Amino acid sequence: MSIKPASGNQIKSWKKLSMSKYRKRMNRFLAEGERCVEQILENRKIMVESVLLLDDSTDTGRFRHDEVPAYTLSAHDFGLITDTQSPQGVAAVCVIPDESAAGQLAGTGGLIAAMDAIQDPGNLGTMIRTASWFGATGILLGEGTADPFHPKVVRSTAGATGILPYRKGPLSKELAELEKAGYRTCLLDGGEDAISIKQVKPHQKTVLVVGNEANGISSSLFTNGRIPVRIDGHEEYVESLNAAIALSIGLWHFAG
Amino acid sequence: MSIKPASGNQIKSWKKLSMSKYRKRMNRFLAEGERCVEQILENRKIMVESVLLLDDSTDTGRFRHDEVPAYTLSAHDFGLITDTQSPQGVAAVCVIPDESAAGQLAGTGGLIAAMDAIQDPGNLGTMIRTASWFGATGILLGEGTADPFHPKVVRSTAGATGILPYRKGPLSKELAELEKAGYRTCLLDGGEDAISIKQVKPHQKTVLVVGNEANGISSSLFTNGRIPVRIDGHEEYVESLNAAIALSIGLWHFAG
Repeated sequence: MSIKPASGNQIKSWKKLSMSKYRKRMNRFLAEGERCVEQILENRKIMVESVLLLDDSTDTGRFRHDEVPAYTLSAHDFGLITDTQSPQGVAAVCVIPDESAAGQLAGTGGLIAAMDAIQDPGNLGTMIRTASWFGATGILLGEGTADPFHPKVVRSTAGATGILPYRKGPLSKELAELEKAGYRTCLLDGGEDAISIKQVKPHQKTVLVVGNEANGISSSLFTNGRIPVRIDGHEEYVESLNAAIALSIGLWHFAG
Repeated sequence: MSIKPASGNQIKSWKKLSMSKYRKRMNRFLAEGERCVEQILENRKIMVESVLLLDDSTDTGRFRHDEVPAYTLSAHDFGLITDTQSPQGVAAVCVIPDESAAGQLAGTGGLIAAMDAIQDPGNLGTMIRTASWFGATGILLGEGTADPFHPKVVRSTAGATGILPYRKGPLSKELAELEKAGYRTCLLDGGEDAISIKQVKPHQKTVLVVGNEANGISSSLFTNGRIPVRIDGHEEYVESLNAAIALSIGLWHFAG
């Protein structure tokens, strides 16, 4: 497919993808970095609209696909569209995949990761990467959670963006839907009533909830029948595990 | 203990702690953030020289200890000494704890986490936090690894800085020392020769090595008798796990 210099208008529109408002309006997001772009192209789960390359880059073959036009940008223009301090000179403009409809995640019948107000983009991206690695069947993004198509989140997924079906919505409602469909809800929590995760056997239909980095899981989600689970550790010296670490250990445990 | 306004000279010297050269020269580092400072004060594993507070902060009681003088700073001066975009108005000047002597880590007889060129400060801090949580008995920081007393690393440990004995040095030499003392070395690796970590039983004297974010473990460390271990996942869509996630799952597995 063709490779040609990007136009001023294109650069202007790609630059806007750093802002949530424009990502929604244009239904596009930006993936940055060699590994990330290469993996997204390989996965063929996300529609890539354009590949962007530094105009003096060599060895660009792995970022060129027959169906995807490539554009070259000067180092200055590349700096305008990315928020990385030292951009690697490779990016892709991608189409935001559709959210799953209500009730659709329940139909996957597997392990679902649910994020309750995960604010740090790096944490969220790492969680999506790990959930994809361990074969989760869906992702629930509760209120207060970062935008999964924010450039920093996308970079942290290392190309795992778009692999899993996802849905945004209030967890109170979404968890109830899953439970109606036979799902068991486990809440990652360090509280006194939590039981050691090692005592909870893996089970097909499990949704594992991880809470906000500073405040944990919202108290309104602790309702009857849900299982608060704990990852035991040396609480005398460390207050808690990092949220992405806790979720990942939980996913590893439940993935069997 | 007293609380008084910081002097210009103090602010000038604390500001330098963002630079590795001055941390070494002054043998001090800066811990930032409420949770981090509170935990460090509570742990009493690190000598805290001074607590720094925003001069209009209320509720500072938990950051005041009898033995530690506190100083107040204006918002402007606080901004000068921290590298956080929105500093929480609490920091501590701490004494860098001594490194363990050669051979000393082997004497701990437990699980040791070894980092081979971990460059991302957030990753390194998270690894130290998780190793402390799971009761590792020491940390080895191989060449090319970030400075554990860099402000970003310290912040990511969430107060776990200083809990575990640590040693910096070339891993080739340090691992050989541990092996002489009866340690088994496991290398976290996705290569074809690696065996599933689930097949490797926990064992008292284990050193678990994690490699650089982009390049993995240095090839020179793959010598006879060492065990390359793998955390199985969906490699068709995701290239690898994040390094901190991989180490954490390994530590959880080996901590039993």
